Amino acid sequence: MLARELAAPFPTVGLDTDALEAARLLADQDLPGLVVLDDRGRPHSILAGTQVLRFAVPAYVQDNPRLARVIDEKHADVFCDALEGRAVRDVLPSQRRELPVVDGGDTALEIAAIMASTRTPLVAVVDSGRFVGAITLDALFDRLLAR
Amino acid sequence: MLARELAAPFPTVGLDTDALEAARLLADQDLPGLVVLDDRGRPHSILAGTQVLRFAVPAYVQDNPRLARVIDEKHADVFCDALEGRAVRDVLPSQRRELPVVDGGDTALEIAAIMASTRTPLVAVVDSGRFVGAITLDALFDRLLAR
Repeated sequence: MLARELAAPFPTVGLDTDALEAARLLADQDLPGLVVLDDRGRPHSILAGTQVLRFAVPAYVQDNPRLARVIDEKHADVFCDALEGRAVRDVLPSQRRELPVVDGGDTALEIAAIMASTRTPLVAVVDSGRFVGAITLDALFDRLLAR
Repeated sequence: MLARELAAPFPTVGLDTDALEAARLLADQDLPGLVVLDDRGRPHSILAGTQVLRFAVPAYVQDNPRLARVIDEKHADVFCDALEGRAVRDVLPSQRRELPVVDGGDTALEIAAIMASTRTPLVAVVDSGRFVGAITLDALFDRLLAR
């Protein structure tokens, strides 16, 4: 089985999408991550859910998770308020990592290898230069173990 | 909201669970990861789905994902066969990382911080020394954004 057979429609967001709306999309549809397309419709970033969570976690807490302890429960419940009025492009990780994108002709093992090395349970599939859908870890495992 | 209020029952596996069965549990129930308990019922490892995928990806491919290209499609479809007859303890990552375990009294921000720093969309909750359930990234986001 090849990536183009495994690719399925997947909701996407753009760089100008509201960051809170992007987080809600992930939460409401129980997505394992987000596919961010650039203005030309090509994959710009593929983010694991934990990276989307980072949109909202204050930088000083990311640098030192123990500092989360000094925030009381009431304020700890509303840290996502920080997303209000910000766009996806404003909260993307500053360091670009290897993009979990596969070619339509890539095999199941190539898909698994890129999910494992990027630690992202989601890959975008690009076929003939065009974004054609995504493959989730769940969908890959379902096919690999369905024998 | 505190971890003990967010904790929900979550399927667990043991160190002696068949590795293929553990992968099937993840796939069949669309889990974001696995909670591995030790023989005394305490969290031993909390694995993201991408780490469970690593159970099956050959070591030489993990070291160099490009090598996946030399495996033909037919063989690439069956790499999970490598799990047969192996136990979870045999395929766990050799390097122990920070364990995504929170205390029952930890806040939403502390939970988010540990998910973000360990890149694991799943934390185990231990209250008074006892494993009481798990919190998924989806469940956390649902509560944080449900206002």
